[in-house]
Amino acid sequence: MREAAARIRMFDPEWVVIAGRGTSDNAARYAQYVLGAFNQLSVALAVPSLFTLYGAPPRMGRALTIGISQSGQSPDVVAVIEEGHRQGGLTLAITNELDSPLAKAADMTLLLASGAEHAVAATKTYTNQLLLLAMLSAELGTDPARRAELELVPHAVESALGAAGVAAIGELAMHYMNAGRFLVLGRGFNYCTAFEIALKMKETSYVLAEPFSPADLLHGPIAMLEYGFPVVLVAPSGKATEDVHPFIDALEGRGARVIALSDRDDVLKRTSSGIRLPAGVPEWLSPIVSVVPGQLWARSLAMAKGIDSDRPRGLSKVTRTR
Amino acid sequence: MREAAARIRMFDPEWVVIAGRGTSDNAARYAQYVLGAFNQLSVALAVPSLFTLYGAPPRMGRALTIGISQSGQSPDVVAVIEEGHRQGGLTLAITNELDSPLAKAADMTLLLASGAEHAVAATKTYTNQLLLLAMLSAELGTDPARRAELELVPHAVESALGAAGVAAIGELAMHYMNAGRFLVLGRGFNYCTAFEIALKMKETSYVLAEPFSPADLLHGPIAMLEYGFPVVLVAPSGKATEDVHPFIDALEGRGARVIALSDRDDVLKRTSSGIRLPAGVPEWLSPIVSVVPGQLWARSLAMAKGIDSDRPRGLSKVTRTR
Repeated sequence: MREAAARIRMFDPEWVVIAGRGTSDNAARYAQYVLGAFNQLSVALAVPSLFTLYGAPPRMGRALTIGISQSGQSPDVVAVIEEGHRQGGLTLAITNELDSPLAKAADMTLLLASGAEHAVAATKTYTNQLLLLAMLSAELGTDPARRAELELVPHAVESALGAAGVAAIGELAMHYMNAGRFLVLGRGFNYCTAFEIALKMKETSYVLAEPFSPADLLHGPIAMLEYGFPVVLVAPSGKATEDVHPFIDALEGRGARVIALSDRDDVLKRTSSGIRLPAGVPEWLSPIVSVVPGQLWARSLAMAKGIDSDRPRGLSKVTRTR
Repeated sequence: MREAAARIRMFDPEWVVIAGRGTSDNAARYAQYVLGAFNQLSVALAVPSLFTLYGAPPRMGRALTIGISQSGQSPDVVAVIEEGHRQGGLTLAITNELDSPLAKAADMTLLLASGAEHAVAATKTYTNQLLLLAMLSAELGTDPARRAELELVPHAVESALGAAGVAAIGELAMHYMNAGRFLVLGRGFNYCTAFEIALKMKETSYVLAEPFSPADLLHGPIAMLEYGFPVVLVAPSGKATEDVHPFIDALEGRGARVIALSDRDDVLKRTSSGIRLPAGVPEWLSPIVSVVPGQLWARSLAMAKGIDSDRPRGLSKVTRTR
């Protein structure tokens, strides 16, 4: 990590391009906030088909290009890294497989070291992807307090995985066993969390769960809310939830059933249902923690619906897209 | 347009940052392809909350920053443009209002000249946003054939708006009056079209309509498809639909009802329902044309559901988000 940070500082990229698919794309969304807010780096999500389908890759010689893939096998992610390298840019792989095409193509590799991901719907590789990006951001910066804050994460995740929480989430999911449509809302650092929880729900519970930021929802699609519409609201303490109450007013004013993921008593108390998050996690690290009860929620919803979430229909671990 | 292109060529940006909300964000998605494929420019969608909520804007001094807003009023889009200018970058506004904060903040303005947008759900300002981006891309390039191709657009849009098509779409929508969930799929240049049609459906018909690229859908969420699930497939001729048949196999193999927007007989013939697009439109311009029957489709679906699409519940024209 220190070596990678040193090389990036020396290269001094103008901006960052990140290629990833599915869950890894949501890790890239986290990078947009953590590398943006702390390292002044603008992050573009790569457009893989420019590389593969249209054969017209953009200029990347002054960019840091990051490829994120659990398996390291996705040909389109590898294509983006290869092109960044060809143009003289700096390239970094984040993967769980050191012996993969992605790791071989990149100048540097950060290994997820998650152990084998047995579940088809990725979970621990996602949290490790976020953790590596958070560590990279802290290492690129100079504030020792941020490095110390990283130490809080393991205990907080353990606490989010606690048995009492698992039971409560399982019971809550039973009330939604017949729901087929959900919104999942998150803002700022936890915009990625909304995307990732929605993705897990779609992959394992076969519901349509669409992620939004509150701003984008208010800009139009809020029209679709109607009485009883279930809304998962990711709302850990932080700047992004300072003015959460008027937003909950808008949701509940339309009759939405709000399931809040929060460590804040004032939020948990007023919403229809609550899932308690561990307290004391700094906002920039909260996505690593707040997604965990969301993953449990998706699993519980699948169980409530009688679906085996370890065997999602029509899903295989490595998807080859050109 | 020529002046703007000349200034951009002289500035020689490393990459492009685009800020927009809702419909304008979908125009930014088009820019990712048109500026990427023809002008070698990587396009990052701006993360507004870095500017407004976290007060930590990223580096943009070597970027072309584009703000897209119909009204030119969105404070977060203006904030991104102001910061780009402050850092010495080049800034461009695309708006329908010359006398707006956005136009005043930017170095250059391209005026949509759409006339007043009376509908709350933006339509003609969206097609004009795409057209201006296409014209800018052609003007930045050197290929006279692309400028000539632009001349095909008005007639193609007129033909897409033809009375026979309107009647057929209205009749088709009646079959879906009870559907509450849709997927909307598009790829490559028409990835933006899938997002924009889905947005119109959500704004006017109160259905949950989630946009996906085929690759992202196959990567996991395809698990949610079940018998009878309605899927809108945007599939005009072009590289992005060369291998569309195996994908339609995958959709129909799961029992999905596919509504295809296409000019291709082989696609229209084999899908459950078809909406015919005008033929002869080059792929890079097809998003300006193929969204039009999609807008009509959203309006027809609203009418079939007995909803007044000119008065979406809880939606106002200008959304102020901080």
